[in-house]
Amino acid sequence: MSDLSVRDELRAFVNERDWAQFHTPENLAKSISIEAAELLEHFQWDASASESEQELIEELADVLTYAYLLADRLGVDPEQIMLEKLEKTKSKYPTERSRGRSTKYDRL
Amino acid sequence: MSDLSVRDELRAFVNERDWAQFHTPENLAKSISIEAAELLEHFQWDASASESEQELIEELADVLTYAYLLADRLGVDPEQIMLEKLEKTKSKYPTERSRGRSTKYDRL
Amino acid sequence: MSDLSVRDELRAFVNERDWAQFHTPENLAKSISIEAAELLEHFQWDASASESEQELIEELADVLTYAYLLADRLGVDPEQIMLEKLEKTKSKYPTERSRGRSTKYDRL
Amino acid sequence: MSDLSVRDELRAFVNERDWAQFHTPENLAKSISIEAAELLEHFQWDASASESEQELIEELADVLTYAYLLADRLGVDPEQIMLEKLEKTKSKYPTERSRGRSTKYDRL
Repeated sequence: MSDLSVRDELRAFVNERDWAQFHTPENLAKSISIEAAELLEHFQWDASASESEQELIEELADVLTYAYLLADRLGVDPEQIMLEKLEKTKSKYPTERSRGRSTKYDRL
Repeated sequence: MSDLSVRDELRAFVNERDWAQFHTPENLAKSISIEAAELLEHFQWDASASESEQELIEELADVLTYAYLLADRLGVDPEQIMLEKLEKTKSKYPTERSRGRSTKYDRL
Repeated sequence: MSDLSVRDELRAFVNERDWAQFHTPENLAKSISIEAAELLEHFQWDASASESEQELIEELADVLTYAYLLADRLGVDPEQIMLEKLEKTKSKYPTERSRGRSTKYDRL
Repeated sequence: MSDLSVRDELRAFVNERDWAQFHTPENLAKSISIEAAELLEHFQWDASASESEQELIEELADVLTYAYLLADRLGVDPEQIMLEKLEKTKSKYPTERSRGRSTKYDRL
């Protein structure tokens, strides 16, 4: 494992291949959807996907990679935007009303 | 910003609401696809999405959050699986053959 | 081309393979998302997809096939639900306010 | 119900609003993915979606509508491409090997 951050590793990978030109926000958004569906394909006919856990993990890594690339393109830090969004979600789903329920906030 | 890791923040959020029961790998995979499409919706009719950058960032945060939850459920570290997958991708896309081209590796 | 309707052709295909057991509404909904992403993959890095039109058409056929299977499972006619939804959409997008604009109805 | 075909109804709807300019193959492909995810959202936390069947049917109609628009844009007939693809799928999944199994053809 490298001492560089994931962001720096990804930047180096992209720059060495001159791929930044393809990484418009729109293309990265399409890519996230495409990889998300490849992940979902492991559950297409079955709620469990046990026989292919390594492949599953790699599809998840693909989703994360495009999401990190988009974050970098937008100039934001992935973990920071998650924490900021989490604060918002907490107030939309107060514990006393949402405990043990998957109901969407606008129907709670 | 908290001193807790994002993983720990997410775990606390989920536990307080007793939501782990809903977070099967399959449900999280569906959730990633659903949030990815909400992100894509910002580019549905237009390659740029300038008027709604804050919303765009929040949709991206949602994708990342479900991806982190799935990683935790699978017992893997999000950044580590990205770095491991990156090593594989590097060998599939050698710089000399892939530079400046978006061609898929099996057609290079 | 057969004299049977597409619905009947699909039913025969599924029955001969004893596949109805896999075609729950949920599994068909996942399948539609998966095939939709394979279609989108033709536009991942490029707004045009000219070199692969036959493949593109087959991906579109896959989306349509799972959508027809879900309609049959729900007991509705695909073309009739399209026409009924079209009536609703017409009233949400009156011609005088929506002409030449891709703005969503709730922002018109 | 009209005497016009669904294709003609959709064409009239689009032309009255001057929306053909937005209906590039790429934008329609994105739209199919977006609507497919809205359909999937009904099954996000639960394999059944009984309480919202009317909404479910309308999401399915949206998927079908964008798929029909893309077919028209590509100059093909939706039901004919389904039947042609079905012939291919039949030979990839011979009944004797695929009966009662959801295994993908390349692993049969």
